[in-house]
Parts: sequence; C-alpha cells; structure tokens
Amino acid sequence: MEKENTDEKYMKEALKLALLGKGFVNPNPLVGAVIVKNGKIIGKGYHRFFGGAHAEVYALREAGDNAQGADLYVTLEPCSHYGKTPPCAKAIVEAGIKKVVIGSVDPNPLVSGRGVKILRDENIEVVTGVMEREAVKINEIFMSYIKSKLPFVILKSGVTLDGKIATVSGESKWITGEKSRLKVHKMRNRVMAIMVGVGTVILDDPLLTTRLEEKCKSPKAVIVDSKLRVPVESQIFKTSREREIIIACTEKFDKVKAESLKAMGVNIVVCPENKEGRVDLKYLTKKLGEMGIDSVLVEGGSELNFSALKSGIVNKVIYFIAPKILGGKNAKTSVEGYGIENISDSIKLKDICAENVGEDIMIQAYVINAEN
Amino acid sequence: MEKENTDEKYMKEALKLALLGKGFVNPNPLVGAVIVKNGKIIGKGYHRFFGGAHAEVYALREAGDNAQGADLYVTLEPCSHYGKTPPCAKAIVEAGIKKVVIGSVDPNPLVSGRGVKILRDENIEVVTGVMEREAVKINEIFMSYIKSKLPFVILKSGVTLDGKIATVSGESKWITGEKSRLKVHKMRNRVMAIMVGVGTVILDDPLLTTRLEEKCKSPKAVIVDSKLRVPVESQIFKTSREREIIIACTEKFDKVKAESLKAMGVNIVVCPENKEGRVDLKYLTKKLGEMGIDSVLVEGGSELNFSALKSGIVNKVIYFIAPKILGGKNAKTSVEGYGIENISDSIKLKDICAENVGEDIMIQAYVINAEN
Repeated sequence: MEKENTDEKYMKEALKLALLGKGFVNPNPLVGAVIVKNGKIIGKGYHRFFGGAHAEVYALREAGDNAQGADLYVTLEPCSHYGKTPPCAKAIVEAGIKKVVIGSVDPNPLVSGRGVKILRDENIEVVTGVMEREAVKINEIFMSYIKSKLPFVILKSGVTLDGKIATVSGESKWITGEKSRLKVHKMRNRVMAIMVGVGTVILDDPLLTTRLEEKCKSPKAVIVDSKLRVPVESQIFKTSREREIIIACTEKFDKVKAESLKAMGVNIVVCPENKEGRVDLKYLTKKLGEMGIDSVLVEGGSELNFSALKSGIVNKVIYFIAPKILGGKNAKTSVEGYGIENISDSIKLKDICAENVGEDIMIQAYVINAEN
Repeated sequence: MEKENTDEKYMKEALKLALLGKGFVNPNPLVGAVIVKNGKIIGKGYHRFFGGAHAEVYALREAGDNAQGADLYVTLEPCSHYGKTPPCAKAIVEAGIKKVVIGSVDPNPLVSGRGVKILRDENIEVVTGVMEREAVKINEIFMSYIKSKLPFVILKSGVTLDGKIATVSGESKWITGEKSRLKVHKMRNRVMAIMVGVGTVILDDPLLTTRLEEKCKSPKAVIVDSKLRVPVESQIFKTSREREIIIACTEKFDKVKAESLKAMGVNIVVCPENKEGRVDLKYLTKKLGEMGIDSVLVEGGSELNFSALKSGIVNKVIYFIAPKILGGKNAKTSVEGYGIENISDSIKLKDICAENVGEDIMIQAYVINAEN
C-alpha cells in the first residue's frame, strides 16, 4: 500500500468530524478540526450547532497545554472576526500551535484570507488547500449562500428507470427502496427548508418531517400555493409546533383563508405572479434567503419541479432511480409543465455521477447557469 | 501491490482476446485462449468468426511443438464434439498440454462437462471456474440462446434525466452524447438483429445500420408492423443488400403491399395477434430464434418498448441518461403504452449498475422473470 500523505490523513479525520454537525449548524458551515503532536491526535472538535463554539475551540480545549508546538488540521479557514464567538485565529496563536493545515479558505469575500494572515503574521506555518475539493463539497450549501444570499436549492425525485413517479392509476408508494427513502430523510435533516407544491399536499397529504433513528430536526415547510387552496385539515399543519410552515401565494390569495391559516401559526409570504400567473419563485427564494434559510429541498410535484427548474432557482438535482419499469403514456413523470420545445434550450447539468443506494441508483448533478 | 493470482492473470489475457471476436461469432460464443510455459505466453488465439477455427486451435498452432508440457488458459470449456471443426479437447490432448484452466463450463446441457472429462481421462490437470463471472458475462447472449433457443433481447433507450426521449415538440436529436451513440453502434455490431416499431420508421426514417470506424456489420433489421404501414420509400430499404430486413405483421396485413415489399427483398413474418391486436412478440422472438438469431436489440419507440417488456421477451435493459432536463407533460418517455396499474406489478429489474459514458450515465439491468 502506498504511504498516505500525512496532511491528507489528518484532514480526512477533520472532515469526518465536520460531518457530525450535519443538520444542526445551518446557515453556518460544517467544520472539523484535529490537533496532532508527535504523530498522535491530542485534540478533536467540530462545529456542533448554530451559534455554538467553533471546531478549533473544542480541539484546543481537549489538547490543553499540550497544544503548544502542535499541528492543527482544520477543514475551513479559522475565523478572524468577533461574531457569536471570539476569533479562532487568535486562540490558535495563543495556544502556541506551530503549523496550521487548512482544507478550504473562507468563501466569504469579507473575511477570506484574513485568518491565514493573522496566523502567518505570528510566524505560524500555514498550508492551505489540503483535500480542498472535499472540504468545499461538504459545505456546498454554506459556500453558495454566503456568496449569493440565496438558498442553495436541491431538487429531489424518486423515479422508475423509465422516468415515472407514479403508475397510470396514480399509485406512487413506493417507487424507491428503503435506503433511498432513508437518504431523503437525511437530506431533509440537512436542509433548512423543504418546498412542495400545493398539489402534492392535496394529493399525498404528507407530513414532510424528518424521520430518522438518530437526533434530527424537521426543516421548515414551504408550500407553494398561489391561491391558498391548501385544505386547513392537512396533516402538515399538525407539525407546526415543531417547525415553521410558510405558504407562498400570489396577490390573488383568499384573504379569509389567509386569516385562518395565520391563526394556525402559518407564515404567509405574498409573492408577485410570474408570466403563468403562478408564484414567482425567484422572488420567493430571495425572501427565504433574507429569512436566513440557506438551503431548500424541492420535493415536487412535477409542476413545481418544472417551474423551479425553468425559473433558474435550482442548483442541484438528486434522482433516485428504482429498478422498476411502469410504462404508461399517462403515468406522471418527475418534471412536467409546458416543457421545453428545443433540446438546445434544455436545462443542462454538469458533474453528473451515479452510485448504487440499496437496490436503487442515485444520480446527482449540478445545474449549469443556475441563477443563484 | 498484492501478488496477482497467476491463473487470474492469464485468464484475463484470454478474456481480452475473446472480446476481439465481438460481432463476428454469433450465434457462437466468444472464446479466448493463451498457452503459457515457464511463465511466458507462447500461444494466443480467439474465436474470430462464425464457423471459423476455435480459439484453442489458433493458440496451439502458434505454440507449435512447444505446447508439450505447457498450460492452456481458455475462457470456455473446450468442445468435445465434431461440429464445424474437430473437437478441441482432442487437439489439446494430442498437443501434450499439461494443465487446462477454464473460465466457464459449456452451458449447452448436451456437452457441458464432456470436454473436461476427455481431458481428465487423459490425466490432464483441469481447473474450472477461474474468473467465471466475467467469462459467463461476456457470453451472456450465447449462454442464454443455447439454453432457451430464444434470442437474448436487450432494450436500449436514450433519455434525459427526467425520462424524456423527445421534447414536447417532438425534437429528439440528440438527447445523448457522442460517446453514448458510439456505444449504441458497438451494441448494434454485437447483436444479430435490431428491432423497431413501424412508428419509429415512419417518424425518424432511420437506417439502423452500424457505423463504426473499425470493421463492423449491420444487424438484421426487424420492423414490427402489424398492418404493413411502412412506407416503401423508407431509407432502411436501401440497406437491404448489406443485411436482411424482416417485417413482422399480423394476419390482417395488406397483401398487395406485402408483394411489393417481398419484391424488394424483404422477409415477411406473419405472426398471430396479441390481445391488443398487435404482433405477438413472444411468437416473433421464437421465430427469430429458429432463424438462428441469438440476440435482438430493441430500439423503440415507446409503444414497442412497452409491448416488448410487457410480453416478457426482454432480458436486459440499457439506458443512456443525458445530463439534461426537458420537462413537459406531453413530452414522450421511453416506455409508454397503456402502462401498468400497480407498482407491485411493475417490470422488476436486478443487478442494476451505472457508469459514466462521456457526459452521460449508462445504466444496465436485467429483467427478473424474463420468459426466455
């Protein structure tokens, strides 16, 4: 076996730690850190929850006086400013760390490079860009949101190999396997909001909660519902105590219905209409971004999926493809609406990759020219 | 690096050689052979074309007298019977080979194990099942045909990630990328027949030939056309000199049209009707099997794809998924027809796997309970 690069070895540890924060740190980044001395890890830490201590602080605390002369591996550039916590770069200097190895520099243009500068000014050796691709990837939500102030939007669908999300008679449970569904719950835990069209609420009456064995949270639910057609007895309203429910409508909404929904604790966001008389999704995502929502998982149906893709708000798509074929000219597919006329105008994707997830195949890709 | 198993090392060489026969040996198997003495390959061979000398013969010829005391690696059990060529097992004995390593035994129940027995009776050491999975896989067509006498049917489709084979306006060129299209031509070269519905001939007017830079052949073309609606001026008829064209119709065919098609060299196969008044595909594939056709590539359209899958004739599906999204409630998908009502009745697939092919993803899977 090839001798593994030492920097990569410890950065991998730090990346693993970072991922433990999944679902609890948004809109802050996932960060992991390890402190190494004489080839031994003497301190570990990760960013555990939004507003909590940074990864470096936990690691330094664990290492104690031993941190003197040790090396620090951290997935993201240490912060340089007083925010919810004091700057980590200062703490690292004070602890007497000798060398700092960084995964990715901070994408925030206001602070990028400042942490590194503080360290170098104190004659600490700094190495950047170790396993940078992985370090950037685990924070794709944070990296995108900090720059655009718009949520990172992921569109998810579960289909048969022939592209159907239901049979001709409308049966849709279950297309995909258990492991795929578990992954969807992990995705729900990871994002700050889940978005569905009112049609899906009427048809499936879903809870849209995160159901996992481990500790998790349900994302805010955003229902796109131009005219407030959502039935007040929908199951989702039973979840309003554990998470916020937002309904996006156009100015043509039903004022009486709006009052009863508000009384149930629902947050109504009135949006301009798009050309088709539907909710302007670009406006809506901008609003969601302003509300501090860094990520949205779009879970259909086919009409909302098409509107979302067409309006340019989607950054990433994740498809679970089940080893089944249903056929049917009238069976629903994942993206419908009026459709695109010419192949040259199709929504184009990049970095497409596939992997087996249980009995299914999961395909991930990024939208080229997403507008956020 | 782990020391590679010697048997596997040489079997890999033999497998590579076997693949060189692709497209030229059907309905015979692909076979490769290498002869090894004192750690050096002294003879190589592969089955080059239908009816030609077997792989072992070429390898023995190359090794000459040196074969005495050498080891033979062959992907498929040496034959024991007088067919188009004399039995290889005898030739191996006569050449003085000491040890024979075999990938897979012959699937033909009439001869399976007989080659091995002849060798062992002559005190030649025989090892079977080395890289058996790979050895079986390269001959999945042969293995299936020899047992069922029905062609191995592969359904191929090129779709967008949202399952469309054309835009709402019917544009379909090109959904998939160049590398995928090249793979399709390699698949055409590999099979003995290509099958399309008459709708595809009317709409796309395709040649259905194999277009590759290297030496290749176009498979026989089978057009499923219940009522002989195919236009006599279709481009495909220009290819009738280089390969056979078969049209499958029901008894309700147009007799006058049939005469003019026959005059153009077309082979008309009259089939019973199925419940929907269309060509009974099970009957048709049985006929094709009787004609010596070991493999069929079904290339749509959506109606034929559904009929083929529903009738149980399809063994394997290959999807090329392009990194594009088109949307559209009215955009065509790969499998349509009347469709399946309940998910529990869906066509179920196994051994699903995915890989990148150029900019696309290729998914392959096998139909569970295919009836051939």
